[in-house]
Amino acid sequence: MCGIVGYIGGRSAQDVLISGLAKLEYRGYDSAGVAIMGAEQIEVRKKAGKLANLAGELEITPLPGTLGIGHTRWATHGLPNDTNAHPHATEDGRLVIIHNGIIENYLPLKEALMERGHVFKSQTDSEVLAHLIEEKYELTAGNLAEAVRLALGDVRGAYGIVVTHVDHREIVAARTVSPLVMGVGEGEMFLASDVPALLPYTRQMVFLHDGDMVVLHDDGFTVMDLQGNALHRDIDHIDWDAEAAEKGGYDTYMLKEIFEQPSALTNTLIGRLNDSTGEVNLDIDLDPKSFKRISIIACGTAYYAGLVGEYMIEQLARIPVEVDVASEYRYRSPLVSEDTLAIVVSQSGETIDTLEALREAKKYGAKTLGVINAKGSSMTRELDDTLYIHAGPEIGVASTKAYTSMASAFLLLALWLGRARGTLSEQQGAELLHAARELPRLVEEALSPERVARIKEVAEKYAHSRDYLFLGRGVNAPTALEGALKLKEISYIHAEGYAAGEMKHGPIALIDANLPVVVVATESFLLEKTISNVQEVRARSGKVIALLSDGDTENAQHADDVLYVPRSHEMVSPIVNVVALQLLSYFTATALGKDVDKPRNLAKSVTVE
Amino acid sequence: MCGIVGYIGGRSAQDVLISGLAKLEYRGYDSAGVAIMGAEQIEVRKKAGKLANLAGELEITPLPGTLGIGHTRWATHGLPNDTNAHPHATEDGRLVIIHNGIIENYLPLKEALMERGHVFKSQTDSEVLAHLIEEKYELTAGNLAEAVRLALGDVRGAYGIVVTHVDHREIVAARTVSPLVMGVGEGEMFLASDVPALLPYTRQMVFLHDGDMVVLHDDGFTVMDLQGNALHRDIDHIDWDAEAAEKGGYDTYMLKEIFEQPSALTNTLIGRLNDSTGEVNLDIDLDPKSFKRISIIACGTAYYAGLVGEYMIEQLARIPVEVDVASEYRYRSPLVSEDTLAIVVSQSGETIDTLEALREAKKYGAKTLGVINAKGSSMTRELDDTLYIHAGPEIGVASTKAYTSMASAFLLLALWLGRARGTLSEQQGAELLHAARELPRLVEEALSPERVARIKEVAEKYAHSRDYLFLGRGVNAPTALEGALKLKEISYIHAEGYAAGEMKHGPIALIDANLPVVVVATESFLLEKTISNVQEVRARSGKVIALLSDGDTENAQHADDVLYVPRSHEMVSPIVNVVALQLLSYFTATALGKDVDKPRNLAKSVTVE
Repeated sequence: MCGIVGYIGGRSAQDVLISGLAKLEYRGYDSAGVAIMGAEQIEVRKKAGKLANLAGELEITPLPGTLGIGHTRWATHGLPNDTNAHPHATEDGRLVIIHNGIIENYLPLKEALMERGHVFKSQTDSEVLAHLIEEKYELTAGNLAEAVRLALGDVRGAYGIVVTHVDHREIVAARTVSPLVMGVGEGEMFLASDVPALLPYTRQMVFLHDGDMVVLHDDGFTVMDLQGNALHRDIDHIDWDAEAAEKGGYDTYMLKEIFEQPSALTNTLIGRLNDSTGEVNLDIDLDPKSFKRISIIACGTAYYAGLVGEYMIEQLARIPVEVDVASEYRYRSPLVSEDTLAIVVSQSGETIDTLEALREAKKYGAKTLGVINAKGSSMTRELDDTLYIHAGPEIGVASTKAYTSMASAFLLLALWLGRARGTLSEQQGAELLHAARELPRLVEEALSPERVARIKEVAEKYAHSRDYLFLGRGVNAPTALEGALKLKEISYIHAEGYAAGEMKHGPIALIDANLPVVVVATESFLLEKTISNVQEVRARSGKVIALLSDGDTENAQHADDVLYVPRSHEMVSPIVNVVALQLLSYFTATALGKDVDKPRNLAKSVTVE
Repeated sequence: MCGIVGYIGGRSAQDVLISGLAKLEYRGYDSAGVAIMGAEQIEVRKKAGKLANLAGELEITPLPGTLGIGHTRWATHGLPNDTNAHPHATEDGRLVIIHNGIIENYLPLKEALMERGHVFKSQTDSEVLAHLIEEKYELTAGNLAEAVRLALGDVRGAYGIVVTHVDHREIVAARTVSPLVMGVGEGEMFLASDVPALLPYTRQMVFLHDGDMVVLHDDGFTVMDLQGNALHRDIDHIDWDAEAAEKGGYDTYMLKEIFEQPSALTNTLIGRLNDSTGEVNLDIDLDPKSFKRISIIACGTAYYAGLVGEYMIEQLARIPVEVDVASEYRYRSPLVSEDTLAIVVSQSGETIDTLEALREAKKYGAKTLGVINAKGSSMTRELDDTLYIHAGPEIGVASTKAYTSMASAFLLLALWLGRARGTLSEQQGAELLHAARELPRLVEEALSPERVARIKEVAEKYAHSRDYLFLGRGVNAPTALEGALKLKEISYIHAEGYAAGEMKHGPIALIDANLPVVVVATESFLLEKTISNVQEVRARSGKVIALLSDGDTENAQHADDVLYVPRSHEMVSPIVNVVALQLLSYFTATALGKDVDKPRNLAKSVTVE
């Protein structure tokens, strides 16, 4: 999550860049930088810390010029200092790039470049791109666009990239995963990570697709794919107001964030799965073999992500895990010692209950690790180490993408622990690595228009129910709990989740013809048992909404309504399955006219006890 | 839980005893025995196993006589063999007694008696009574009633006792804790543990009080206290039908069982608290120092008792405890090893999910212990050892007395582990021992007519609510969960329990003016925090029903309705507090006209998956 802005036209580039970056600062504020084409050279100015630091400096000594690129950074790899700040220039300063994302094969690329005489200034993967493009630039006898295209052909990873060269009045940009949108003006062109940066200048916009490359001139643009084929992209007229723009054209932040999940998951996973070794690189400064127990501590949605984590870690790494609600943990003199790893889970990193529980765990000598979204938040300053989920800012109060990213982070942790402790064979590791890699694609598929329309239809059918029950088993028992919490939070329908096998020990008394029961019944070694629970519901006239794996027509007969979800490896299935439940809650709440982004009584980050 | 019958009159004593014992067999069926006064001696006939064994033998060789006492036993201490079966006679066979309950100071009494030349046949505490009465009989120059009275003065414990002597045509009986009811006929008198045994013969009954002693003759009876003062007891005309009789005059089994809790708790605790050493005698054949982890496994109400147990054991014995829902546990390849103690909790000992989970734990080498009510049930045959809760038969589907007895059993376990492992000082042990001893009295107090009337009033006020929330913290977080489950089970109102501090992380969205929120806010080091949660509810117009400790008028101002409960040591408070919630559920369900004993969709003992 970083922000990019580019400008070519008649205005002061510095003004456009700084005003645009200000709108993107929600995407990161560890450092900021701009590169502006001067009369004879490209001037780079960058500064650690918030954008205001850079803006203040530029106010005193402005950079003249009408072509420029700018960046605001949320550090993921490498310290947030001046050197690591973007833009990055080649040694001669003639080529300047900004890069969001991760180049997964940067090490072999870097070694090869160094052998060929390139001198590196930083440890960043991004610098590899600058040198690589420089090399290709020579190879193509000074064709910048072609140089970028060839360089990207050598690269594996996720990126949004913008490139300028002193000899060309043009900006070359390309994207996979990281978003980019172009603004079309009269005799000027804009580029940004997100619409709000461009709204003061133009409402004519082109949304670039994954794999698109584009060249911007003062008076237009050309789009091509990475094979060099020209592409047509529509210019959309955006009539969003500023608020709508921040929601990316979605009605609500929550819906936007639901749809951001494929890229959020990519950001969680990227650079951390090592295909060649079948291992996981987490850059965690803790010895995976030194723990005898793991204690996961969290509140609300993060607590349910922790329950998924418990299942994954116990199964794959065979370490005893206990998950605690933070508000209880902190007052029960927890049983913690130096061989305990305490993992706190929090989107904001500020939740006071969790923060205090973390302090309690530290007091007893536990090693501590965070699964956290917000960089630099209070918890991260007190933790031994943090596994950032990199889900990007989450504005909707009801958490969606943070939940799936947290669960994915736990998958990474479980794999890391399992491989290090020898409880997971190379083959099992490889299989799960593959399952993890598939996640963004599967979640994208779970968000297909047909599925979304079907979920909306079912949500509206049952929207006037007074109560809801959610059932699931095994690794999907927490999916049921989270599905219920989501519905409760935004629709105020009294929804409750249960482990499916526990229903008959009490809650089954609630079941009658007015009670919809959502059952997570996707492919699993427990599917038959779950279907028995479905029968128990049906026998009491309950209405069954079944989440079934694509193609499972056999079990469809036991349900009143079926929501099909993409097939996935059982261990990652909670991450795919929950998406349907997020949408079910969403469309139920909107059918009831509720304000989903700001549900009554709730706050995004709970910093009171 | 054993059954007693006595008869004196004109009929065949054998017929009355056998028909009466048949009605009491629900109270135990490990052995049965009768003693019948013949022409020159008292004949004792007893037999291990069900009553039918004894009845069959008596059919072939009947015992003539019109005065007799009989017993059906549920073994608690001592094997259920012929020797340990009741009645017990003195060496010369002239004095015969039946004793239910436990003589806590039997060891010093026995030693003193042996020094004075008495010869003991069995290891039972009951035999002490026979010898003691024999000695007092001589001392009083043959006054049987006086002998019994003096003997009971030396005894500490709980008992129902009936005594006959070959030289007296009378039956002497007394009770504390164990129930006894007399039936008054014309020229005949009856005695039994419970009304159904007497219904075929008379409807004129006298319910004996704790501490009552009575002498039965053919044509009447006299009641006195243990100081020898004559007492008046009304003769009640009982117009119950057979079913009502089994409910002991209560409208439902559930209500009967709620009111049985003081005696159920006494039965759980009695003989297990050693005042002189401040320790707990559990007669468990496991080394309390050999466990590194404890895993508690259960379903439904028993699961919540397990959560109370987790808190108690972690606090008092500092062993890490994890509590699992059985249906989940058995399918998650649990992390168990030989240093794990797996504790299964079940009223019936037959719950299939829990039984299968037990087998799973054994497979991985765990030591196993049961907290179980039903003697000889399937689980007890597979467990390494069982800590019986001795709550007596529970017929109502919604568990009440089994829950409080289970929680008390966990208190005993926590004390046993804590003392053995040295995490609990003698003084703390003594303090908690005292708190445990107080439990039956406190629960009795929690059931006072004024409190019950107040709870009924509040229940009826909110009976038409669609939803209910229950909140609690720390050791009373499970109280909230159990309170919600109870209401859900019998009233079908969608009630949900939460740790109070977790409410603001989601469920708070449900709160509006129509939602009653029950908050367990009794004396606690966390009370202030809980009251903050109350404020959060009030700020959203939720209706607060607060459980407050007697005398807490200060916090009463924050509640819409207050239910006062007796003050108790915080560690035992879940056992006292939950009683109010049981009654709240009960009166809500009856106000709504629900069948509380047989709630829809539920079964008492769930023997399907």
